[in-house]
Amino acid sequence: MLTLYSFGPGANSLKPMLALYEKGLAFNHRLLDPTRFEHHAEWYKKINPRGQVPALEDNGKIITESTVICEYLEDEHPTKVRLRPDNSYDRAMMRIWTKWVDEYFCWCVSTVGWHRYVGNMVRHLDDVAFEEMVSKVPVPEQQVKWRTARKGFPKEVLDEEMRKIGVSVRKLDDHLADNEWLAGGMYSLADICNFAIANGMEQGFAELVNASDTPHLVRWLHQIHERPAVKDMFERVPREF
Amino acid sequence: MLTLYSFGPGANSLKPMLALYEKGLAFNHRLLDPTRFEHHAEWYKKINPRGQVPALEDNGKIITESTVICEYLEDEHPTKVRLRPDNSYDRAMMRIWTKWVDEYFCWCVSTVGWHRYVGNMVRHLDDVAFEEMVSKVPVPEQQVKWRTARKGFPKEVLDEEMRKIGVSVRKLDDHLADNEWLAGGMYSLADICNFAIANGMEQGFAELVNASDTPHLVRWLHQIHERPAVKDMFERVPREF
Repeated sequence: MLTLYSFGPGANSLKPMLALYEKGLAFNHRLLDPTRFEHHAEWYKKINPRGQVPALEDNGKIITESTVICEYLEDEHPTKVRLRPDNSYDRAMMRIWTKWVDEYFCWCVSTVGWHRYVGNMVRHLDDVAFEEMVSKVPVPEQQVKWRTARKGFPKEVLDEEMRKIGVSVRKLDDHLADNEWLAGGMYSLADICNFAIANGMEQGFAELVNASDTPHLVRWLHQIHERPAVKDMFERVPREF
Repeated sequence: MLTLYSFGPGANSLKPMLALYEKGLAFNHRLLDPTRFEHHAEWYKKINPRGQVPALEDNGKIITESTVICEYLEDEHPTKVRLRPDNSYDRAMMRIWTKWVDEYFCWCVSTVGWHRYVGNMVRHLDDVAFEEMVSKVPVPEQQVKWRTARKGFPKEVLDEEMRKIGVSVRKLDDHLADNEWLAGGMYSLADICNFAIANGMEQGFAELVNASDTPHLVRWLHQIHERPAVKDMFERVPREF
């Protein structure tokens, strides 16, 4: 049996959720509460020593890293629904898109998200309680990020991240102007992994993602929301924020 | 016919070279000269608009991104030599290692490499000639990196990158203490992609990578150098530095 450990349907947690629902695979869903820092709890660090979600358990074996989990589901649990193109070239193009999300797009959006929302989760804590929480974070770079988020990210960092978000949504919109989907002419992990980050930007980044500036990106976001598996997932999995 | 566009046998260029030689695939090798900034020339930007090596051409189709090229070779050109485990779980572990190289290990080593070597390539240029060169670099982040490399990276940046290099070689050595290879009990893309970055560290980072501090990492480096395909490759492909 499959068990997915994740936060609610957003960011990296959303990727394997979309893949599992689209493929019609049954799984136990163990939702962790980020506001209680459940991903840094000892029981969870036995599952993922890096204290990060998502993680997939498959008959006692643990797979981490959202994009790797998505490829694993295709390798190990093929169903009628294929989320990778069969053609090697198209599959390579898909992987260039999933790699780009993980190395560029997700980071700029993440920093702004941490600045706006995650920082608020810890501003009510006094210094001692906050440092006690941080001491449980296993990845040193994440400890730095928590401390910066609590203070607020410097303006020059946020400006640079907003520039990168602008570059990202332009790149997506340009590609989607001539292509229904990101790779191989089919809904694939390229779409799933990019949607996981781009979903909600019409609200959160309305000055960048809107029907007049990025009509093709907006079309693609709506098209994914109309998929039965995506509708079903958003109906069943509670959102946190 | 396959054509590989790359620099000499180091860093990301080394990854597809190792895979092609190991698999015994014939290919044209078009070596670009980094000291003449050939990767920023118009003819090459028609092949890779990002002006980066390596790139693989396969019957007119272009694949970029070194790790994606390696997976493409496995998908499209299977030979007797397999560089990915068959088992899905082992394959996922392999991908966690190749992802970690691309997102963490390669960046800290790269910054120090740029500081030591790449900066020297442009210090003889006057400001006008330098900015003319930089104007041909298509990726804005790479333009910033060229300017920083010419001035020299700040000490706090270099200290942080050296810390990350220390974490990286510790992680590799710990894993290789109990495992002959990085994933799936076989020489795989996990080894190839990590070796591409770790090779030469016994010389360049001798204070971190040596027989007493990281014996398992050193054993693994030597073991890879003893492979016939690796020997053959280093004999045939000229090094730049």
